[in-house]
Amino acid sequence: MNSRVSQRTRRVRARKLGIEIGRFAPGRYNAITDVTGVRVGHSTVFHGEGPLVPGKGPARTGVTAILPNGNNIFENRVIGSGFILNGAGEVSGLTQVLEWGLIETPIVLTNTMSVGTCSEAVVKYMVDRYPGIGDEHDVVIPVVGECDDSWLNDAAGRHVRHEHVLEAIESARNGPVQEGAVGGGTGMITCDFKGGIGTASRKLPPEEGGCVVGVLVMSNFGNMRDLRVDGVPVGRMLEPEFSKDSKRVNNYGSIIAVLATTAPLLPHQLQRLCKRVALGIGRVGSHAAHGSGEIIVGFSTANTVPRRAKGMVYRIKALLDSSVNPLYEAAIEATEEAIINALCMAETTVGHSGHVAPALPLDRVRELVRAYRPQFRSA
Amino acid sequence: MNSRVSQRTRRVRARKLGIEIGRFAPGRYNAITDVTGVRVGHSTVFHGEGPLVPGKGPARTGVTAILPNGNNIFENRVIGSGFILNGAGEVSGLTQVLEWGLIETPIVLTNTMSVGTCSEAVVKYMVDRYPGIGDEHDVVIPVVGECDDSWLNDAAGRHVRHEHVLEAIESARNGPVQEGAVGGGTGMITCDFKGGIGTASRKLPPEEGGCVVGVLVMSNFGNMRDLRVDGVPVGRMLEPEFSKDSKRVNNYGSIIAVLATTAPLLPHQLQRLCKRVALGIGRVGSHAAHGSGEIIVGFSTANTVPRRAKGMVYRIKALLDSSVNPLYEAAIEATEEAIINALCMAETTVGHSGHVAPALPLDRVRELVRAYRPQFRSA
Amino acid sequence: MNSRVSQRTRRVRARKLGIEIGRFAPGRYNAITDVTGVRVGHSTVFHGEGPLVPGKGPARTGVTAILPNGNNIFENRVIGSGFILNGAGEVSGLTQVLEWGLIETPIVLTNTMSVGTCSEAVVKYMVDRYPGIGDEHDVVIPVVGECDDSWLNDAAGRHVRHEHVLEAIESARNGPVQEGAVGGGTGMITCDFKGGIGTASRKLPPEEGGCVVGVLVMSNFGNMRDLRVDGVPVGRMLEPEFSKDSKRVNNYGSIIAVLATTAPLLPHQLQRLCKRVALGIGRVGSHAAHGSGEIIVGFSTANTVPRRAKGMVYRIKALLDSSVNPLYEAAIEATEEAIINALCMAETTVGHSGHVAPALPLDRVRELVRAYRPQFRSA
Amino acid sequence: MNSRVSQRTRRVRARKLGIEIGRFAPGRYNAITDVTGVRVGHSTVFHGEGPLVPGKGPARTGVTAILPNGNNIFENRVIGSGFILNGAGEVSGLTQVLEWGLIETPIVLTNTMSVGTCSEAVVKYMVDRYPGIGDEHDVVIPVVGECDDSWLNDAAGRHVRHEHVLEAIESARNGPVQEGAVGGGTGMITCDFKGGIGTASRKLPPEEGGCVVGVLVMSNFGNMRDLRVDGVPVGRMLEPEFSKDSKRVNNYGSIIAVLATTAPLLPHQLQRLCKRVALGIGRVGSHAAHGSGEIIVGFSTANTVPRRAKGMVYRIKALLDSSVNPLYEAAIEATEEAIINALCMAETTVGHSGHVAPALPLDRVRELVRAYRPQFRSA
Repeated sequence: MNSRVSQRTRRVRARKLGIEIGRFAPGRYNAITDVTGVRVGHSTVFHGEGPLVPGKGPARTGVTAILPNGNNIFENRVIGSGFILNGAGEVSGLTQVLEWGLIETPIVLTNTMSVGTCSEAVVKYMVDRYPGIGDEHDVVIPVVGECDDSWLNDAAGRHVRHEHVLEAIESARNGPVQEGAVGGGTGMITCDFKGGIGTASRKLPPEEGGCVVGVLVMSNFGNMRDLRVDGVPVGRMLEPEFSKDSKRVNNYGSIIAVLATTAPLLPHQLQRLCKRVALGIGRVGSHAAHGSGEIIVGFSTANTVPRRAKGMVYRIKALLDSSVNPLYEAAIEATEEAIINALCMAETTVGHSGHVAPALPLDRVRELVRAYRPQFRSA
Repeated sequence: MNSRVSQRTRRVRARKLGIEIGRFAPGRYNAITDVTGVRVGHSTVFHGEGPLVPGKGPARTGVTAILPNGNNIFENRVIGSGFILNGAGEVSGLTQVLEWGLIETPIVLTNTMSVGTCSEAVVKYMVDRYPGIGDEHDVVIPVVGECDDSWLNDAAGRHVRHEHVLEAIESARNGPVQEGAVGGGTGMITCDFKGGIGTASRKLPPEEGGCVVGVLVMSNFGNMRDLRVDGVPVGRMLEPEFSKDSKRVNNYGSIIAVLATTAPLLPHQLQRLCKRVALGIGRVGSHAAHGSGEIIVGFSTANTVPRRAKGMVYRIKALLDSSVNPLYEAAIEATEEAIINALCMAETTVGHSGHVAPALPLDRVRELVRAYRPQFRSA
Repeated sequence: MNSRVSQRTRRVRARKLGIEIGRFAPGRYNAITDVTGVRVGHSTVFHGEGPLVPGKGPARTGVTAILPNGNNIFENRVIGSGFILNGAGEVSGLTQVLEWGLIETPIVLTNTMSVGTCSEAVVKYMVDRYPGIGDEHDVVIPVVGECDDSWLNDAAGRHVRHEHVLEAIESARNGPVQEGAVGGGTGMITCDFKGGIGTASRKLPPEEGGCVVGVLVMSNFGNMRDLRVDGVPVGRMLEPEFSKDSKRVNNYGSIIAVLATTAPLLPHQLQRLCKRVALGIGRVGSHAAHGSGEIIVGFSTANTVPRRAKGMVYRIKALLDSSVNPLYEAAIEATEEAIINALCMAETTVGHSGHVAPALPLDRVRELVRAYRPQFRSA
Repeated sequence: MNSRVSQRTRRVRARKLGIEIGRFAPGRYNAITDVTGVRVGHSTVFHGEGPLVPGKGPARTGVTAILPNGNNIFENRVIGSGFILNGAGEVSGLTQVLEWGLIETPIVLTNTMSVGTCSEAVVKYMVDRYPGIGDEHDVVIPVVGECDDSWLNDAAGRHVRHEHVLEAIESARNGPVQEGAVGGGTGMITCDFKGGIGTASRKLPPEEGGCVVGVLVMSNFGNMRDLRVDGVPVGRMLEPEFSKDSKRVNNYGSIIAVLATTAPLLPHQLQRLCKRVALGIGRVGSHAAHGSGEIIVGFSTANTVPRRAKGMVYRIKALLDSSVNPLYEAAIEATEEAIINALCMAETTVGHSGHVAPALPLDRVRELVRAYRPQFRSA
């Protein structure tokens, strides 16, 4: 019996449980792909069972790719920025994003010790696609973020290969995004429950500008006792039911969040928006633990920055600062919901050595949230 | 009838309402003064009524002083650091604190356009006290933080004078700290309720190191709809009851938080701890609005850095990183509770032009929190 | 006989000595005022002689004001940024400049312990000029930078008064800028010579965009042995001639540089440009000593950001990154020359207690530079 | 005839030419390895000739490894920090170094699009050496810096393999360091001359603490016209002799500098020291061009931070800030000389497509420096 299939239960997103975080409505897919042009793809690496044999497995890992601008981010670069709440992690390439205020490669998410492999694979992908790189064009520095999935995954075995990166990039699509224990999120854990990939979006009403903010997370942080679902201390109440199962002592985590927006933000405005993602992470229960890297990458699709241009000066659209606050709220809301979606969609996963990351018990969560919320009780 | 006295109602701190945030116990006073050596003093500037006449009043402002190390921070400097979540504000002197990892002056909190006055007054205080400053000693750069109280206060009138700064410093004491509409917090507003000064502390259990973390805030941020008390969306539920009174459109705020700890942290460790204060601010409902400066100043009293030393190398105590996580949690808890304490202790305040900042209705809050919390309901 | 007058010698700018730093030509005035709209004014506080009597004098200090955008920076804000090479100093208000990417007040330079006084005075100036501040308009946070002039000046005496700040602002003019021991630079020292205010500019040739970069420094850093004039180790060669006079042991300095440009830079681009100013400071011989704050404030006049605007989105001019390099070079050149101009224009100044800051000996400098430069020798 | 051998001329370090930068004496080897425990190794990848055939060659690249703490940086971690002067580049892993103030892996330098490969190889090396990584131990994030060698090297061909990384690490030694066109520096260019790896050190005299500062650079920045050798504008004078050969238009460069010191610096002190390296880079002629990443990584060997420790608090040695200035000067001196050493030791290199990076003409440099320096002329 395959441990993966056996543990599958029916998973639904937070909204299906009646959990609606914040005051703004989501976009069509309630996903980062509600920002036009953004595509997401996954490659899941899941094989083997039993004890950890470094190099053999079991493998519970993968790759998630976010293409910020359709299929040609290299030619049509977008404004980018980011924020490091806690740098106990790595987003390779972020230094240049922050310096130039631009993103020019796909964004790839994977496990910690596969960052190098993924960076190499993206280089290969870019070079094959744009033969002038390293000759008439500059070299490229891929954006690759990581979390540590070693409690479930044979991390030392480095099971992510070039083909997984290519699969994630080439399968990237608009529309609904697969969430939970998939792609880079395959082996990730959040607040002692199975976490992974989650996404959500908000579309501002027309009178607040009508812009879309989407967030995708690879979520891998936290202690059960700290988990809050829209403010409700779900983790504290579930902890007695789960503590007997937990074998995790060190709780090294991380969360990488990718924010996309249609709002025409300049790099410094985008950086400010990325900081608000950190507040959303905090609301779910993160204290940004010592070993847990909380890093945010953001981009705006409103302006593209062509690789070749005539003249020296161009005109760029910029949002007036007096209109940014709703975006801040939307970013927090979407972040919170993206993390909860990752938890809601991830199935129980058995990793190496009998390590189990249990799925968030959706029925209990619905019950607890209802118990805490008068509006649910009256329903 | 004095508008201030007339509005006074009996105010209690959050714990008296049964609100106990987080998992750690507070220190003796549940205040920043639980960190031995820390003293706090206030000077409240409150006079006049009626329409705003710049230069005349009404004045609803003041000064709060935090002395990090008894009465001699100049000679016995402490390790200091800070974090700027949102720099739409000012803590004059913070640049040097961050550069040197030291604090060597009192920390003073006031209204925005009185930062200069307070800085000048602290210089005068220091020069009078340490006659060698500017001669055998270096000059000093005081640490002065601000929020904007102009919705209640005649900010343009600059009613804070040197004597208020001296009063705050010289009246600074150990032990319980006066909270609410007092000192620098006199004219401050939080989530559309009267805010101001609040404080809280946490004492870690011996097995987690036994250190104390204290936080004091001058709280002046946010929208009512976003206020959360230990996760409970109190603001959203109170908003219908209050919206008719509100005349505030622009919601420029800010919060300055001062963190003190007995934990022996190096400057970079202290900076990390200050970042967690930002997460605590976020949990109360801040989205760190465009015009709202969220700035944290922190210090550790575990090591003092003497102004004069023999030799070139000294030995400094440092906490192992493997022990920092409980401090992070404690900082978040104390921040959240400090803000709620500011709200709980602040009485309704009538400012200029009929502007009223209503006190947080404590009975309603207790009721709402109980309704949302099964453990309250069962009690 | 007045000590000030007696020491006056004929001073000329670097170019009059044949020192032409870099490859670009200066603007018309070789001053920050070559950036259209920029005005500079000074107020010099110079009185008393003899031993230091704190509070009495002697006073060797003052105020320099830079108005970035004609006489209405409050209504027509400009893009601003900055860079802190060494934060052992203070530019009050810089935090907000960096956060918002805007400057909305005059920039004022003074001595360290007068920052508060100047901040207060600018607030008063702004409030008087724009009565809505603190009511319909936000409060303001002035930008006030400092260096420590306490070796010559009775710093503890705080001789800068509000009227000096107003004088500096109201006397600010386009055109040539007075340099040397004037305004905020009155008591400043650079590489053990009398320093103070200096300025220079570069105008790029049309094929490199034609933009202007101007730099103004209040220069107060360094050891004589490190002084370099266009690479020539002038200080090392002059040191034997001067060492007998020097009584300075601690060499706490600082330099505040203000960069202005007509280039349409976004805030993150402007921040990068400000970093290059730091390289220019280094070339003159600064090692950014522990106690020496090296802080740069920059602004671009190409876009103004109106305080009130219709709509939510506007269009802003931006320079393509492929054209920024000449600006970087120009910023370094202008910084280097501005510092040398401060030295060249400052006369010997006798401060308190017989402390003397000697003027840079121009004849010797010319001679040394010629000796080191074959092109001079052949002339 | 092999293009590499044919171009070899006798190369000597700067001091052999009589160029002695600064006031402090070098350590025994005038190399980063003068910091006890530091080892350096190279792997040079040099094959093929003729036109660029991506994937085939010619290859002019390699790997340089710096082991900060003998052969066991993983168990005996050192205090680390860094500074990003210009983030148009990548040092993968630096985010964690800056966050934790620690270095726990070798530091590897290579070409831009081989960062991923090297990161992967270091992971493999670490996992093989410390089998508990990813299980009882945390995962690791290697520190890998890059410059762009694509003007000489088939960068798109990604010729760096795992075995090169292992060779560089395993061949790392104390003592003299091979410089010039070697290891990661094989294809690098500095101010239009052949650059690459260079190193230098300074040993402070006992009365200034006796500490050692060593710097190693992979140098790849700048325009010929800007090159200065100890202040002498050598590049400006050589440019007429070389301009006919140059085919380079875009001058994308970068420099990665690694600083090591025996001084007991805390992370924030070390970061400040790393900033001074940037000033040294500026003195050689860098304006930190838009596309040129200037990134510094630093570490102190005075304290080791054990991976496992008893208790929660330890005592760490720290240098008093009053003693840091000589270290700042030493860092600038060593940086400047390390870059000049790279230029002096690198032989002319023919890359792909007939691209030639000429060796710095040592005889001309000696002559020019002598002509500019009276003390030489009198000799």
